[in-house]
Amino acid sequence: MDSMSTGGTDTAGSTSERTIAELIRSWVTAIQECDPARVLAGHTDDIVMFDVPPPEDGARGTAAYAATWPTFFDWIRAGAVFEIVELEVVAGEETAFAWALLRCGTPADLDAHPDRRLRLSLGLRFEDGEWRIAHEHHSFTHRS
Amino acid sequence: MDSMSTGGTDTAGSTSERTIAELIRSWVTAIQECDPARVLAGHTDDIVMFDVPPPEDGARGTAAYAATWPTFFDWIRAGAVFEIVELEVVAGEETAFAWALLRCGTPADLDAHPDRRLRLSLGLRFEDGEWRIAHEHHSFTHRS
Repeated sequence: MDSMSTGGTDTAGSTSERTIAELIRSWVTAIQECDPARVLAGHTDDIVMFDVPPPEDGARGTAAYAATWPTFFDWIRAGAVFEIVELEVVAGEETAFAWALLRCGTPADLDAHPDRRLRLSLGLRFEDGEWRIAHEHHSFTHRS
Repeated sequence: MDSMSTGGTDTAGSTSERTIAELIRSWVTAIQECDPARVLAGHTDDIVMFDVPPPEDGARGTAAYAATWPTFFDWIRAGAVFEIVELEVVAGEETAFAWALLRCGTPADLDAHPDRRLRLSLGLRFEDGEWRIAHEHHSFTHRS
């Protein structure tokens, strides 16, 4: 159900979009497999992540980013789902962004709210010959 | 308190980053002034916005995006604040992303939670000779 952007019309753009989609899918697989090294791979040293929980200013840098994952891995190991439903990638030559919608929750959460989505936005830079994630924003909607 | 990316080292990149920062600041001013036409300006027709409230799949396209604003304008007119605290822009030649942290809430919200931030991520494309916002993601953290 991927939907590559129609924004990149040249071959280089399309190749980058496929490469980035693969990078994001590998990262999701690494999360599902609770593999910290592969979750960190493909990120810039100055990653800024806006996570679902605080801190309000985000997790900044590799160490802070790495520290967000153990609690999430415990939740995955207890049976929670983290799975892409839709992915869009828009890449230029040096900079790209992507967004995705994911099914994310415990089986009980997903039964109770089957349409609920984790919303994910990503910013990427092409550095040292490869695409790396420099920004992540994970959130759920707030219902009033 | 802007922090332009160190990612764009050529003059064109820096010019784009300044142009995009101005576009984002003008959009924030238009929101503060509850001016729908200027809030819509500078967006692509296929804008995908992940808003704070549902829908889970986001507001897609100009009409759906436009429909998210009247309720927010009512809240601004009643005294709510929407103000950039920090902004980072990373631009290539055709594609860019940006993130920002904002003070956003009623005066009572801001008194009660002065460090709370609206987190904003943006994806942009260079189209028809100008930068346009193609993706927005607005969220608050969830506290467990």
